Amino acid sequence: MNISHIEHIGIAVKSLENAIPYYEKVLGLKCYSIEEVADQKVKTAFFMVGQTKIELLETTDPNGSIGKFIEKKGEGIHHIAFAVQDIENSLKECEEAGVQLIDKTPRAGAEGLTIGFLHPKSTMGVLTELCEDKNVK
Amino acid sequence: MNISHIEHIGIAVKSLENAIPYYEKVLGLKCYSIEEVADQKVKTAFFMVGQTKIELLETTDPNGSIGKFIEKKGEGIHHIAFAVQDIENSLKECEEAGVQLIDKTPRAGAEGLTIGFLHPKSTMGVLTELCEDKNVK
Repeated sequence: MNISHIEHIGIAVKSLENAIPYYEKVLGLKCYSIEEVADQKVKTAFFMVGQTKIELLETTDPNGSIGKFIEKKGEGIHHIAFAVQDIENSLKECEEAGVQLIDKTPRAGAEGLTIGFLHPKSTMGVLTELCEDKNVK
Repeated sequence: MNISHIEHIGIAVKSLENAIPYYEKVLGLKCYSIEEVADQKVKTAFFMVGQTKIELLETTDPNGSIGKFIEKKGEGIHHIAFAVQDIENSLKECEEAGVQLIDKTPRAGAEGLTIGFLHPKSTMGVLTELCEDKNVK
């Protein structure tokens, strides 16, 4: 697998409206996009920090994965996403190494990326996303 | 505050010996340093991913902060560290904005950095580190 950089860090928040001012006014970052990802039941806000994005995630459904995460663990860092060059092969390599996959085949994620998640049971507790930007090839 | 990039992501693991092979053999990253930080009661392993480091943290004392974190929440992402240009002023700005500080004045961290932590109560659940590399100035 060839990881070039950390594409984003996903952070679960109860309210984008409350969280965005902290990231903008205290940390001095700029929210450049707010996007709803219907099939993940989230509304997202993006900030660029060097080559990595911070993706704030607010659930649009208490029974969605972010709603359940916050209910169980509270607000906080939800996942880390690595940029890879070949998402199909990267997921295959993980599976062959015995890593449990949440997504056996890649699917569409936020910002036009093609993504797949690894199960935290296989990654020492870290919900891990692999993602490829097929639009820049 | 002027954040240039994400300096590192801290990940709490039970055992560096078990975790390092996953990061090296599955994700294809290279562990370039193992360091004990006595006053934080941790042994750390570092991997470079683009401009950001992954810092695996194994406790050297069950009563240390990483030991307690794992006991309470299990293994997983522990904190996010932003690179800033002026750690003293950055902490002061946070305090003036009403953010609760864990470190009111900067202290020495791993890899020769000067660091300060913000309390997750004030940052929507994200244990946040600010750090400055005073050696490159």
